[in-house]
Amino acid sequence: MNGNALRVLVNGQALDCLPTSDRGLLYGDGVFETIAVSDGKLCYWEHHLQRLQSGCERLGIAAASAGLLLEECRSLVQTSPRAVIKIIITRGSGGRGYRVPVQSRPMRVVQLHDMPDYPATCTERGVKTRICRFRLGHNTALAGIKHLNRLEQVMARREWDTPDIQEGLMLDTAGQLVEGTMSNVFMVKGAVLITPDLALCGVAGIMRSRALELAKLHGIKTRIQSIQPDILMQADEVFICNSLIGIWPVIGIDGHTFQKGPVTTHLQALLADESGSVQTDKHF
Amino acid sequence: MNGNALRVLVNGQALDCLPTSDRGLLYGDGVFETIAVSDGKLCYWEHHLQRLQSGCERLGIAAASAGLLLEECRSLVQTSPRAVIKIIITRGSGGRGYRVPVQSRPMRVVQLHDMPDYPATCTERGVKTRICRFRLGHNTALAGIKHLNRLEQVMARREWDTPDIQEGLMLDTAGQLVEGTMSNVFMVKGAVLITPDLALCGVAGIMRSRALELAKLHGIKTRIQSIQPDILMQADEVFICNSLIGIWPVIGIDGHTFQKGPVTTHLQALLADESGSVQTDKHF
Repeated sequence: MNGNALRVLVNGQALDCLPTSDRGLLYGDGVFETIAVSDGKLCYWEHHLQRLQSGCERLGIAAASAGLLLEECRSLVQTSPRAVIKIIITRGSGGRGYRVPVQSRPMRVVQLHDMPDYPATCTERGVKTRICRFRLGHNTALAGIKHLNRLEQVMARREWDTPDIQEGLMLDTAGQLVEGTMSNVFMVKGAVLITPDLALCGVAGIMRSRALELAKLHGIKTRIQSIQPDILMQADEVFICNSLIGIWPVIGIDGHTFQKGPVTTHLQALLADESGSVQTDKHF
Repeated sequence: MNGNALRVLVNGQALDCLPTSDRGLLYGDGVFETIAVSDGKLCYWEHHLQRLQSGCERLGIAAASAGLLLEECRSLVQTSPRAVIKIIITRGSGGRGYRVPVQSRPMRVVQLHDMPDYPATCTERGVKTRICRFRLGHNTALAGIKHLNRLEQVMARREWDTPDIQEGLMLDTAGQLVEGTMSNVFMVKGAVLITPDLALCGVAGIMRSRALELAKLHGIKTRIQSIQPDILMQADEVFICNSLIGIWPVIGIDGHTFQKGPVTTHLQALLADESGSVQTDKHF
């Protein structure tokens, strides 16, 4: 979500203004979350909050108070029951160069955005994708974190501009499948649900972990492993997922075609069942 | 340079305020330059400008007008003959997600900072360094660019907080020496000046290219090649360099000690000779 937000709170103030000394700008020194708001509820709030806090912990940034964040999100969605909340936490200003200041005051940004108008066919019939030429570098110490260093995704997304391609799939520098530019990716082969290992790079998506948990709960075998592109092309089913799109079946990867299959349909139904119930924010 | 700036221009306006929809914050989607100001002159202005423009070109960002940038830098340094200028160019706001908006208006930030008070002993006697545990990931498409995705450097710089260590040397994920967190690194062996290849990662520093050019001009043999840490430890001389520190001899790397040697001293003298003359900004 990058368009101008409908409303913004910066450290609780309704002023869309960040000092240019903020380390989020200077170094991408921070983390973010993109949260779907449905029927006035912050979907998977606890999951997003937990990832945000865990990301801050790994970067050594003092996490924002959960209560404060929830209060600010709540104030923004009051008049927007269907929307997107984006939270950004940076290390704040201060210090010189890369060295982290002893006393840094993290910066807290909460933005309210319109929910994108994705065509219903994306969920129902599926989307076409491509394999990006741009590769993801390995970095175990940053892998999984939804941090603000996202030039790799920006560069990969620049590779195509045709509206019939909804997502680009990214390989790492070793040629293994990792994720989509804005999503995680799954394949099904012989009734086993498989998704790439993210130990070396990639973002550990909330919807990725929900899909894995729901699959396990409902007797679908899961496996996290390296996936070569040629193995992907032999999949029975492929889908991508993120917090805004939910699950989109993949019906094309470059020249290869796929069918929306029973496991994808089953997981879509399980997700639809839980959205608006147990997994959405219970504080509202 | 990350402390609060003395003065800031954002798109030419004296207002230290960036919208939170700026892609520099959201994705690190931009580039920067850190320029020494000495006797009121922007040192190596043409070199910095050229790298800035080349970085913008590689990221597909419309470069700012050179005349405009120079004018803004000039207005900031008028009352500060010894200072640091930091320029940041981001892709600006707009669009949604990683996709680059068709019509993006780049954001131009020019900050004036105090020149850091580095002890004279750093230049004269040398500095102690360490090898960082944090590794640099490979990414040929981003290698060399001074872009805003700098979490790797931030994380490496967090590894030590002892004032006797001035710099951390970084290896890539393959274990090869690349650079310092804020500097480039050189070694001398058998009268040959050697610096790591930056084809896979690292920032191509202005002072690195000046050191190589000056060496060639004065009959010092140079070589750009992979350097394993054990080869580094057998060097006759080691030094680090950047636009603010110039050249600092390295007299320690973890437990290993080194002496400031003749090639380092020679290059320091050559740099001192040209600073303030041919290589500083001629427009002042």
